[in-house]
Amino acid sequence: MSDADRSRLRRYAELAVRVGANVAPGQIVEVYALVEHAPLVREVVRVAYEAGARYVDVLYADQHVRRALIEHGPDDALTDSAPWLLARTRAWSEERGAQIVLAGDPEPDLLADLDQTRVGRAQPRALNEAYLRQANARLTNWSILAFPNDGWARAVFGEPDVERLWEAVAYAVRLDEDDPVAAWNRHVDRLKHRAERLIELHLDSLRFRGAGTELTVGLLPESPWGCAVEETVSGIRHVVNLPTEEVYTTPDCRRTEGVVRSTRPLVFGGTVVRGLEVHFERGRAVEVNAESGAGALRGMIEEDERAAFLGEVALVDGSSRVGHMGLTFFDTLFDENATCHVALGDAILSKIQGAPELSREERIERGLNAASSHVDFMIGGPAVDVDGVTADGRTVPLLREDRWLLE
Amino acid sequence: MSDADRSRLRRYAELAVRVGANVAPGQIVEVYALVEHAPLVREVVRVAYEAGARYVDVLYADQHVRRALIEHGPDDALTDSAPWLLARTRAWSEERGAQIVLAGDPEPDLLADLDQTRVGRAQPRALNEAYLRQANARLTNWSILAFPNDGWARAVFGEPDVERLWEAVAYAVRLDEDDPVAAWNRHVDRLKHRAERLIELHLDSLRFRGAGTELTVGLLPESPWGCAVEETVSGIRHVVNLPTEEVYTTPDCRRTEGVVRSTRPLVFGGTVVRGLEVHFERGRAVEVNAESGAGALRGMIEEDERAAFLGEVALVDGSSRVGHMGLTFFDTLFDENATCHVALGDAILSKIQGAPELSREERIERGLNAASSHVDFMIGGPAVDVDGVTADGRTVPLLREDRWLLE
Repeated sequence: MSDADRSRLRRYAELAVRVGANVAPGQIVEVYALVEHAPLVREVVRVAYEAGARYVDVLYADQHVRRALIEHGPDDALTDSAPWLLARTRAWSEERGAQIVLAGDPEPDLLADLDQTRVGRAQPRALNEAYLRQANARLTNWSILAFPNDGWARAVFGEPDVERLWEAVAYAVRLDEDDPVAAWNRHVDRLKHRAERLIELHLDSLRFRGAGTELTVGLLPESPWGCAVEETVSGIRHVVNLPTEEVYTTPDCRRTEGVVRSTRPLVFGGTVVRGLEVHFERGRAVEVNAESGAGALRGMIEEDERAAFLGEVALVDGSSRVGHMGLTFFDTLFDENATCHVALGDAILSKIQGAPELSREERIERGLNAASSHVDFMIGGPAVDVDGVTADGRTVPLLREDRWLLE
Repeated sequence: MSDADRSRLRRYAELAVRVGANVAPGQIVEVYALVEHAPLVREVVRVAYEAGARYVDVLYADQHVRRALIEHGPDDALTDSAPWLLARTRAWSEERGAQIVLAGDPEPDLLADLDQTRVGRAQPRALNEAYLRQANARLTNWSILAFPNDGWARAVFGEPDVERLWEAVAYAVRLDEDDPVAAWNRHVDRLKHRAERLIELHLDSLRFRGAGTELTVGLLPESPWGCAVEETVSGIRHVVNLPTEEVYTTPDCRRTEGVVRSTRPLVFGGTVVRGLEVHFERGRAVEVNAESGAGALRGMIEEDERAAFLGEVALVDGSSRVGHMGLTFFDTLFDENATCHVALGDAILSKIQGAPELSREERIERGLNAASSHVDFMIGGPAVDVDGVTADGRTVPLLREDRWLLE
C-alpha cells in the first residue's frame, strides 16, 4: 500500500470512529464487515483503540458462507439466529457500545442464480429484530460506511477500477475536504434546516408522480422529519450513514396507496433487483414485480408479512454529492443518498417520542410498522415530481426535475 | 482460480470434513479461520452442508485486530473472554458440534516488535480453558489443517511461492494419493501400531540428549501412548491434526528435569521464538531463554503459572512425510510433525480414563497439568538421542539420528 493510500485509509477510519460512530472513551466497539473489508477494518480498530475504546470486537461475515447456507442448508436454518450472536447484541445494548458497519459488496449479484424465495427468506429474524430494536431505542452509537474494493468497483464501472471508486467515495463522504469534520458539521446543519422546513409544513401525505409511479404515502402528525444524525440515550451524537443526504420521516404504514417504480437497481442480500414495481393497497404491498430479483423480495414478505408495509420515506434531491455524480453504486448506502427512497419493513422510531417503548401491537395500531427487516429502495429522479399535501388539502411542491423547491 | 486449483481445494475441503472432523449428518459445524483463509473456508462450508451439517458457523479472526488490542488496548482487555464467545463454545459442547480450525499464518512475525510480555499475556483465558476442556472431554469432533497463502509461503521460502507451498502441504496431508481416505487409514494404523509398541514397554520416563539438550520427562503409568486420532463420546472418530505423524503421551507434570533446546523456530501468537532454551526443575520451567521471542513465553507464564509445566510429550522420526521434506514451515501444525516435541501447558486427557472428570486440583495432584494454554515446541532432530527408561531402570533406545528403532 502506498503512503498516500495508507493516509487516505487512516483519514477514512478517523471519520468512521470520530464523526460517524463518535466512539467515546471506555466504550466497547463492534465492527461488522465482510472479509473483503479487512484493510479498512484493521485501520478502524486501531483508531477506535486510540480513541479510548475498552475493547473492539470484529465480526467478519462472508457472502459465500451465506450462499452455501441458502444453497445447501436445511430449511429451518435459513431464519435461525445463533444464540451467541443474540447474546453479543444484548451485550452491546446493555453496555451502550458503539457499532461501525462496513458496506461495499464485492459481489452484488452473488446469489442471483439461487432459489430467490430462499434468498429472501434467509434472514436471522430474531437477530435482525434485536438490531433494529437497539437502533430504535438509541442504545448504541453507530454508523455505516463503505469500503472500496475490486469487486464493488467492477459492479459500478464494469472494471475493477478501485482507485476511481475511492475517488467517488471520498468525494461523497467529504474526505476531500481539508477539514472533513467541519465540513460534516456544516452539511448536517443544512440537512437539519431542510427537515425543520418540512416539519413546519405539517404535511399529512406525500405524492410521487411520474415515470410509472403514482404513489401516495400517508404521514403521521407525531412523526417529525429528521436527518441521519442521532443521539443515544447517553447523549452521544452520531452520524448513522456516511454519506448521508436525506431528510426522512416515518410514514403511517396503513396509508400507502398506488404504484411505485424503482428508479435505480436495488442490491438485496446478494441479488440485484431491477425494474422493481410495487402496488400498495391500504399500506400493504399487494403485488411485487421486477425485471429480475422480485422473488427475493417476495420471499422476504412470505417470511414476515409486515415486511410488506413501509417503515420510512426519505427525500433527496439531485444536487446531493452522491446524486450529481450520476453513478449507480449498486450499494444502498450510496444509491439511497442519490435520490428519494422508501423502505419496506421496520419503522424508524428513534425520533418519535415514546415509540420505542410501545409493544409490537401498539406500534402497528398507531401506524408505526414493526418488522424484522428494513429494505430501502430508490423511487426518485428527474421524471418524478414530489408534492406534499397538508391536512387541509393544500398541495406544496417539494421536488421538480430533481431540484429541491423549499428554501 | 483455475479448474485444477479449484479441484485441489475441493479435495482438501473433503479431507477436512470427511476424514479430519468427520462431520456427521445433523451436526452444527464451527469453522475457525483467519480472514486470509477465506477461499478454503468457503469450500469447507459447502462440503460440510453437503455432508448434512445442520448449520455451519464461521468465526473469522484477524491477527491485525489482535495486534491493535495488544498495542493500544487497556491492560485488562488482554485476558478477557467475550461472554458471547463463551456462549458459542458452550453451544458446541452441549450440541456435540464439529469443529474445523484453519492454520497457516500469513504473518508469523507480525507482533515481534510489540511488548512481548503483553503478547504472551494476551490470551482469552476462560475461552481457551473452555476449548481445552471440550477437547479433553471428547465432546466435539474436530480437526486442524492449514491453508497455503502468500504470506505463509513467504515465511517458508522467502518468496510468495504459494504453488510450491501447496505441493508441500498436499504431500504432507496425503492429498497426492489417488485415494487419500484409504491412505489415511493405512497411515493411522501405522501410528497406532507404534503407540502400541510404546505402551508394551511400560516406560517410566523419556530421556532426550544431544545438541545442548539434557532432558528427562517423567511419565505416568495410567497415561497410554496414542496418536492424534480421537473418538468423541458420541462415537465419532476424527483426526485432530492434518497432517499428523506423532505418537504422544501425557507426562507426569511434576517430573520434568534438565535443560532442553528447541530445534526449530516456534511461532507463538505472532512472534517467532528462535533458539529457545528452557530449564526445568521438578516439572517447572524455571528459566526461559531464547535468541528472540522469549518474552512472549515468559508473559504467558506470568499470566498463568501452570503454563510452566508440560502437558504433552510426542515422538516423531525424520522419515515422516513432513520430516523428510526438510522444510521449516513456521507453523506448529507442520513443524511439530517433523520431529519430537513437548508442550507447555494443559495436559491432553482424552485418552486417560476418568481424567476429564477430575477437578483442577485433583488433576495437578495426579501429575496431569491444568493450564489455560497448550504450546508445543520442537526438541527432536538428528543430533538428539531419545531413550525410554522403564520402571525397573532398563534403558530402551527409541530414536537415533532421527530414526525410529522400534519395529
